[in-house]
Amino acid sequence: MSMEAFLHKKRGILLAYDQGLEHGPTDFDERNVDPAFVMNLAVTGRFNGIVFQKGLAEKYYDGRLPLVLKVNGKTNLVKGEPLARQNCSVQLAAKIGAKAVGYTIYTGSAHESIMLEEFGRVQEEAHRLKMAAIAWVYPRGEAVKNDTAPEIVAYAARTGLEVGADAVKIKYTGDVESFKWAVKSAGKTKVFMSGGPKAPTELDFLKQVRGALDAGATGLAVGRNVWQSSDPLRMARALRKLVIENRSVEESLQA
Amino acid sequence: MSMEAFLHKKRGILLAYDQGLEHGPTDFDERNVDPAFVMNLAVTGRFNGIVFQKGLAEKYYDGRLPLVLKVNGKTNLVKGEPLARQNCSVQLAAKIGAKAVGYTIYTGSAHESIMLEEFGRVQEEAHRLKMAAIAWVYPRGEAVKNDTAPEIVAYAARTGLEVGADAVKIKYTGDVESFKWAVKSAGKTKVFMSGGPKAPTELDFLKQVRGALDAGATGLAVGRNVWQSSDPLRMARALRKLVIENRSVEESLQA
Amino acid sequence: MSMEAFLHKKRGILLAYDQGLEHGPTDFDERNVDPAFVMNLAVTGRFNGIVFQKGLAEKYYDGRLPLVLKVNGKTNLVKGEPLARQNCSVQLAAKIGAKAVGYTIYTGSAHESIMLEEFGRVQEEAHRLKMAAIAWVYPRGEAVKNDTAPEIVAYAARTGLEVGADAVKIKYTGDVESFKWAVKSAGKTKVFMSGGPKAPTELDFLKQVRGALDAGATGLAVGRNVWQSSDPLRMARALRKLVIENRSVEESLQA
Amino acid sequence: MSMEAFLHKKRGILLAYDQGLEHGPTDFDERNVDPAFVMNLAVTGRFNGIVFQKGLAEKYYDGRLPLVLKVNGKTNLVKGEPLARQNCSVQLAAKIGAKAVGYTIYTGSAHESIMLEEFGRVQEEAHRLKMAAIAWVYPRGEAVKNDTAPEIVAYAARTGLEVGADAVKIKYTGDVESFKWAVKSAGKTKVFMSGGPKAPTELDFLKQVRGALDAGATGLAVGRNVWQSSDPLRMARALRKLVIENRSVEESLQA
Amino acid sequence: MSMEAFLHKKRGILLAYDQGLEHGPTDFDERNVDPAFVMNLAVTGRFNGIVFQKGLAEKYYDGRLPLVLKVNGKTNLVKGEPLARQNCSVQLAAKIGAKAVGYTIYTGSAHESIMLEEFGRVQEEAHRLKMAAIAWVYPRGEAVKNDTAPEIVAYAARTGLEVGADAVKIKYTGDVESFKWAVKSAGKTKVFMSGGPKAPTELDFLKQVRGALDAGATGLAVGRNVWQSSDPLRMARALRKLVIENRSVEESLQA
Repeated sequence: MSMEAFLHKKRGILLAYDQGLEHGPTDFDERNVDPAFVMNLAVTGRFNGIVFQKGLAEKYYDGRLPLVLKVNGKTNLVKGEPLARQNCSVQLAAKIGAKAVGYTIYTGSAHESIMLEEFGRVQEEAHRLKMAAIAWVYPRGEAVKNDTAPEIVAYAARTGLEVGADAVKIKYTGDVESFKWAVKSAGKTKVFMSGGPKAPTELDFLKQVRGALDAGATGLAVGRNVWQSSDPLRMARALRKLVIENRSVEESLQA
Repeated sequence: MSMEAFLHKKRGILLAYDQGLEHGPTDFDERNVDPAFVMNLAVTGRFNGIVFQKGLAEKYYDGRLPLVLKVNGKTNLVKGEPLARQNCSVQLAAKIGAKAVGYTIYTGSAHESIMLEEFGRVQEEAHRLKMAAIAWVYPRGEAVKNDTAPEIVAYAARTGLEVGADAVKIKYTGDVESFKWAVKSAGKTKVFMSGGPKAPTELDFLKQVRGALDAGATGLAVGRNVWQSSDPLRMARALRKLVIENRSVEESLQA
Repeated sequence: MSMEAFLHKKRGILLAYDQGLEHGPTDFDERNVDPAFVMNLAVTGRFNGIVFQKGLAEKYYDGRLPLVLKVNGKTNLVKGEPLARQNCSVQLAAKIGAKAVGYTIYTGSAHESIMLEEFGRVQEEAHRLKMAAIAWVYPRGEAVKNDTAPEIVAYAARTGLEVGADAVKIKYTGDVESFKWAVKSAGKTKVFMSGGPKAPTELDFLKQVRGALDAGATGLAVGRNVWQSSDPLRMARALRKLVIENRSVEESLQA
Repeated sequence: MSMEAFLHKKRGILLAYDQGLEHGPTDFDERNVDPAFVMNLAVTGRFNGIVFQKGLAEKYYDGRLPLVLKVNGKTNLVKGEPLARQNCSVQLAAKIGAKAVGYTIYTGSAHESIMLEEFGRVQEEAHRLKMAAIAWVYPRGEAVKNDTAPEIVAYAARTGLEVGADAVKIKYTGDVESFKWAVKSAGKTKVFMSGGPKAPTELDFLKQVRGALDAGATGLAVGRNVWQSSDPLRMARALRKLVIENRSVEESLQA
Repeated sequence: MSMEAFLHKKRGILLAYDQGLEHGPTDFDERNVDPAFVMNLAVTGRFNGIVFQKGLAEKYYDGRLPLVLKVNGKTNLVKGEPLARQNCSVQLAAKIGAKAVGYTIYTGSAHESIMLEEFGRVQEEAHRLKMAAIAWVYPRGEAVKNDTAPEIVAYAARTGLEVGADAVKIKYTGDVESFKWAVKSAGKTKVFMSGGPKAPTELDFLKQVRGALDAGATGLAVGRNVWQSSDPLRMARALRKLVIENRSVEESLQA
């Protein structure tokens, strides 16, 4: 029931690779479209965990690092209020060998109550099967003008805590001070910063991560900023320096 | 199946702390954002029970006072007709050690029937597991212009009785006479006044509570008026005097 | 599985008291707001059964007369197409000692199919547990301009028969001839006239009941015309004369 | 799992009497409003089966001829896209002694998918309990301008085959040639022509039935054209001649 | 759990015949309207598998070639956002002897989440019963202007992989290069090109199939281009040459 499996020196970097369902292959190139490439990258880049949907887990996961099985998802082709229902049983996740399940809650969506209910069941079942439950909390909908606004991010973090997530994945607010409040709001629920779309430069990205860590984040879940990088392993090394070894952005970039 | 665990001299004060999901951390400051602070406050303030969502209960509840586990909830980011579905099983509530489960019914909402049905199941399951079932009844929607209007509050109270709640949490009408009618309408279902947003002064708040008690209420569920107070323990003491010792507002404030 | 428990000389008068959920305490006064008062009235007035929602049954029912447990209901605060879902399990009804369950079907509502389905399950489960299933059939919605129109009332009666109700509660059409058709349409399903809002005079009300009986009704379910009466026991006596002893309106009023 | 029980010389005539729910007693007169009358008529008229909703089956069916238990239905008071959910369990149908269950699918309705799913379960359960599954397929909705158009009727027939119905009840197209195509489209699923509203003359009706039979139909399900007839037994005799003995319309009318 | 049963020399051609439900008999002529004709054609044409809905499988499938049982479907009479729910249990598919189940997911539909959830359950159950799970992925709705656009087809292919399909059926993009990307996006999930409506000439159709194969497709699911052909067996022979023997379009046409 804990995030221990994904942590080293109390920090963790998850390699996220659920974009194939969420955004489609438009995020990929000839190399990273191949889940085997990303699986290998996760191992050689010494990530603390990898995030797969059921299909990738069944066909590509080989146990060389801990697995987060994402048990809901949706395409970006659907318009209107977002809703992602559970598409993988928690039992199957356990059978595949996952150490955690992931579930996205779109708070603010007209369908929020369905996802809160479903996460509730997923979380309990995961705990019974000795897996952690990680909530991706993404505020959406009419009342959410800006989903990186400090109060919205802090609300997302707190939602993760209230609903019983062992870890919550949230967007970065843009500055250390406001993200501190989000981390504080999450209490004992560990905060993972969402990597988001590829940043203009590596420096930009690492600065964001540094900010999140300085604010108290446990780590991050990163996808595009690694596997869209021209040198993913270099990026992986830099992130390890930054997150696990807790070095400065400059030291990390020189790694 | 009774509220006994939460009562002292037939009165009870519950410390409510489910605002993190319902309103977000915007209700909190650096101190009360920490559930451990509120958990301690509940103990040192000698409250008769504490109200947590599942996540807080799992991570912060330690058994030093009786627990009400709130098994549904929603964020305030969702627009439209309110709906909060069950996000915690009654079995888990029992396993955590709760003495009661709480459930919000938004009567008047287009989704009312879903919540009435779900509360029905929750209530029966809670009773089977020897826990009380407390209904938060909040009238909403088109037909509800003013949710503290006497006839609306009395309807909420009666709804609690009709659906089998052991206790019902309702808003104060503003005066003793009209609240008496609400208490009478609730019959053998115990009435807890909802603390609501922080009152302009402590005097204002205590007068409301006094009114509710004089009208026959069993007690109150209070959150912001305690943990947003500059001196929460003083407020706790005053409330104990007022509610449990049944003193006047003036005596209680001098406590 | 039969209505026997509620009949005397093949006739029956049920004291209905589910208005607390359906209309709120606005129907009540200081006296009849108390379910204990109505429970006693049912006994002393020698009614053949009493109708309670789950909450009242659990807290006030003591077995002195047969119980109809109403297992669905809604508030009148909700706008739009009516829907009342099951809020009490049939098992609980049996455990409380009910001899019948009651369920409202709003035919004509956009949600009709949900209620027809749910009644189907409730009816089968009730029969398995040796209880009768009584349908409150209330036509509503766009196509229903006048819910006491003869063809609408007859349709309601027939719906009760078709869906397997042991008894059906319907509104009075206003005259004997047209109500005869409704009773005939109900076949072997026993017809109980719905008492409705308090009539202008006792005479008016008893004439309606007499009409329903002359048309073949088995009895009536009456609430407000009894417990809103200035002398409920006198009204109860009159109804017994009229319904059970099958006397004229005049004889009954002199009782 | 076959229709054998309902066939004589490979033909069958079902007496349909589910109009009480579908249309209300407006279809009935003083005589045929009584299910016992129709039950007797089915026996004395030597029909091959009778179609009842659950309520009629429980209270009037006595086993003298095979029963089709209709397990869904709706009133005609509901506006909007048609939906009829299951209101009787397949187990109960078996317990009552039905040899088949009937279920209406409104293809083209916005709720089509609910009915296709539900029929799927009903069909499998019926087969497990050794009953046939008969689909009433009625195309409706925006795309269906004319529900007796040849391509629409053939689509209905084919739908019955595709979803696994043992027999499908469809409307007549109006001519032999086009109905042949519908029968062919239904493959091994037996086609029963829907009797529909009372035809202007007996001759008109029998000509339609003759056309359906000449096109390959197995028989028909007829209600109003029999029990609304001034001489139902004469009509029954004529239909037997026509359908079972395979005589001409003229011979049959002289019967 | 694999597609082995449907492959020869690692290629496969499935004869699709679920159009009776999806489009109605308008796709058929006097010959191919008969499932027995198509069943025979599948055997004599040496197809690697046949695709049936439940009803056809129960009444016409005889085990002479492997079966894909399509477990959801809808008519084309329904307007609005597409939704096809499961109408056949996976257990029944296994009992009938299917080697795979098929399920259509309309990504982009407002009901996408229902189908993703349902496919998730179907896939797990199929694997438990040792059957493959094939996803028909058809992007639809507002955001999908052109469902053969390369990025849309690649997204469909990837969706099949992400949700755990053993094979995915997708439309052809129109050229080899862009379809290569779709095939690559599908990873270890085998790609079957959707035959689609009858092409203007056999040459046109075979060129498309050749393109799909050259792009890496495992095979195709073809219906109308075979059974609407004037010489279905000749078409079958040509397809075998092309797909299984991996010959050129010209060689295949001369077969």
